[in-house]
Amino acid sequence: MTPEILTNARIATLEGPGYGMIDSGAVVLGQGRILWTGAASDLPAAHATAPRRDLGGRLVTPALIDCHSHIVFGGDRAREFEMRLQGASYEEIARAGGGILSTVRATRAADEEELVAQALPRLDALIAEGLTTIEVKSGYGLERETELRMLRAARQLARLRPVRVRTTYLGAHACPPEYKSRPDDYLAEVCLPTLRAAHAEGLVDAVDGFCEGIAFDTAQIARVFDLARELGLPVKLHAEQLSHQGGTALAARYGALSADHVEYATAEDAALMAKAGTVAVLLPGAFYTLHEKQMPPVAAFRAHGVPMALSTDCNPGTSPVTSLLLTMNMGCTLFRLTPEEALRGVTVEAARALGQTDCGRIAPGLRADLAIWNVTNPAELAWRIGFNPLHSRIFGGSE
Amino acid sequence: MTPEILTNARIATLEGPGYGMIDSGAVVLGQGRILWTGAASDLPAAHATAPRRDLGGRLVTPALIDCHSHIVFGGDRAREFEMRLQGASYEEIARAGGGILSTVRATRAADEEELVAQALPRLDALIAEGLTTIEVKSGYGLERETELRMLRAARQLARLRPVRVRTTYLGAHACPPEYKSRPDDYLAEVCLPTLRAAHAEGLVDAVDGFCEGIAFDTAQIARVFDLARELGLPVKLHAEQLSHQGGTALAARYGALSADHVEYATAEDAALMAKAGTVAVLLPGAFYTLHEKQMPPVAAFRAHGVPMALSTDCNPGTSPVTSLLLTMNMGCTLFRLTPEEALRGVTVEAARALGQTDCGRIAPGLRADLAIWNVTNPAELAWRIGFNPLHSRIFGGSE
Ligand SMILES: [Zn+2]
Ligand SMILES: [Zn+2]
Repeated sequence: MTPEILTNARIATLEGPGYGMIDSGAVVLGQGRILWTGAASDLPAAHATAPRRDLGGRLVTPALIDCHSHIVFGGDRAREFEMRLQGASYEEIARAGGGILSTVRATRAADEEELVAQALPRLDALIAEGLTTIEVKSGYGLERETELRMLRAARQLARLRPVRVRTTYLGAHACPPEYKSRPDDYLAEVCLPTLRAAHAEGLVDAVDGFCEGIAFDTAQIARVFDLARELGLPVKLHAEQLSHQGGTALAARYGALSADHVEYATAEDAALMAKAGTVAVLLPGAFYTLHEKQMPPVAAFRAHGVPMALSTDCNPGTSPVTSLLLTMNMGCTLFRLTPEEALRGVTVEAARALGQTDCGRIAPGLRADLAIWNVTNPAELAWRIGFNPLHSRIFGGSE
Repeated sequence: MTPEILTNARIATLEGPGYGMIDSGAVVLGQGRILWTGAASDLPAAHATAPRRDLGGRLVTPALIDCHSHIVFGGDRAREFEMRLQGASYEEIARAGGGILSTVRATRAADEEELVAQALPRLDALIAEGLTTIEVKSGYGLERETELRMLRAARQLARLRPVRVRTTYLGAHACPPEYKSRPDDYLAEVCLPTLRAAHAEGLVDAVDGFCEGIAFDTAQIARVFDLARELGLPVKLHAEQLSHQGGTALAARYGALSADHVEYATAEDAALMAKAGTVAVLLPGAFYTLHEKQMPPVAAFRAHGVPMALSTDCNPGTSPVTSLLLTMNMGCTLFRLTPEEALRGVTVEAARALGQTDCGRIAPGLRADLAIWNVTNPAELAWRIGFNPLHSRIFGGSE
């Protein structure tokens, strides 16, 4: 691949404040990497003869990254959504087979091919908005074979689409019905052995858990994190979503890549996260769907310098969201992030939440993962609701 | 055009309860109309030889209708959105040229071609979700030439895209700066004469106003409605959005097609609306963007049998929304509508809010305006967030 120059562009490099904006900029791409970026007038002589592509003044940003998703799952929960709005009680919905366990049932019943086929339209919707990297979690199997199958399906996605997939093992998502009231047995007999097996098969990039009254407590999560540490895998955690359980402090203690949701995190938690370099992954789609009232402590995160990422949390129960642009708007509208924080949240900070140092910004040496937009002002990306101004997407240097 | 049969479909006719669902259904189309619909097994012998199109079990609904939009406008408000989130006060934003008057300035500065060019991507986003009819309002000119230009631009849209446009004159949207504190003079000298001129040019299908403390009071709106009545034009009203002003009762008194927003409407208002046949047009995008707390009185609307429509309210300041599917989700999530009410809100009730009796349902004699979806359960349309499962759109019998 010979170098190619994108020119006549507004480049939101996200290197430095004010979007790291370069007006009348150029980006030189080659070998799937960014070779150079700066004002077009400063283009090094070495690149003077490379072919140029005039972007007509369009905005260029790093490609989008979804750092927290559950896009591999079986079934849907539309019927449950409808029942709830028709006034059904939680008991009635449970009796009709609703709730997370309905997704567990449908996921267990689906083979790998079906899981892939169902995930692809969700992934395609995200790619259509300029996404190039997505994290995908297991956690609807809660038994060995299905957990492994979910992770294999996630890996398949990267073979079927021009996208990078980072897989996260989330065996500690919920306690399955066959281990009702015996979460420690579930961990010992299923969750931890399956993590070993998944790791041995090369299926795990990170390890996650759900630390909540309705899921696992900090001592139980620590068992999972201990094994992750033994295996050399980074950790992250669904923490303080519905109540304060101490998950964020635990995550920071283990040097977690991220603590996610974190509506009930405190300023003290924020200080611990900052020290540990743990990213706060904000998930406004779930906040919106669940009618939550408790806002994440954005001011404390800012004050302590905790990086904030934004993600879809795409899942069938609490956040059936397949739009990062809408997630940016929700981050601004519901959590009062600035449009720049929202854009950083789905690029550079999302990369950080995945431990990826090779993407999320526009700088020499990084992957040529770029989004080109039919707008000039980056604030438009977060301002609009239900509109996709993507012009084109560049993944590893190729459209 | 010879008749064509769509077969192997789940048909949400919206004729009767339970979505008026016909399983294993067929629709016969001919001459741009629906000729017949029912169970495929009941297909009349007269149509036995018509060509058939197998929809593979897909869901068919009436095509979507956006009954309240301001998609023709100049400029954008992304900068103002960003300033607000950066902590700017309303004075600072106003000093920087923000607010509705910034849109008025940009719209006055744009020629017809520019207004059309800027509206088309918004319209295309809606069409991509299966829309075939859209209402478009004036109201960012607030002076004769620009109001007429907006309406002409709206009419142009229907020449450039396979879509029906219903135009609404909204001269009484705000009092322009040149008439500051002289709203009655604005009405007498600009708003009413411009309505006459627009009507004479055949540009007006309905007349609207904004009845609010920050806009016009009921006596002023009544002057506009009186002229509409004289001209034989139906009326509708932005009413009770931010406070209770009596606009809904006024609208009902004039037999308005719809009262829109209506968060502060009362049960008494609902009774008046029901009696007048006035549709409540709910606009959750504005509710969401403005962080409103007061919910529209959905229970009272249901109790009194007031039809409820849902619409984007697409506008640059308070609802930059170009997705009716997302609007359906917001109607369910924010206003607790059922998925069936949401679907009716963007089809049959939206048609009613426009006074259109020829679309919005699937029944013999109506226009063949249909949406075919890659789902089988209609609740999925409202359940998903930021996902477009449209398979194809049929407008007047043609794809
Ligand atoms: Zn999650
Ligand atoms: Zn409006």
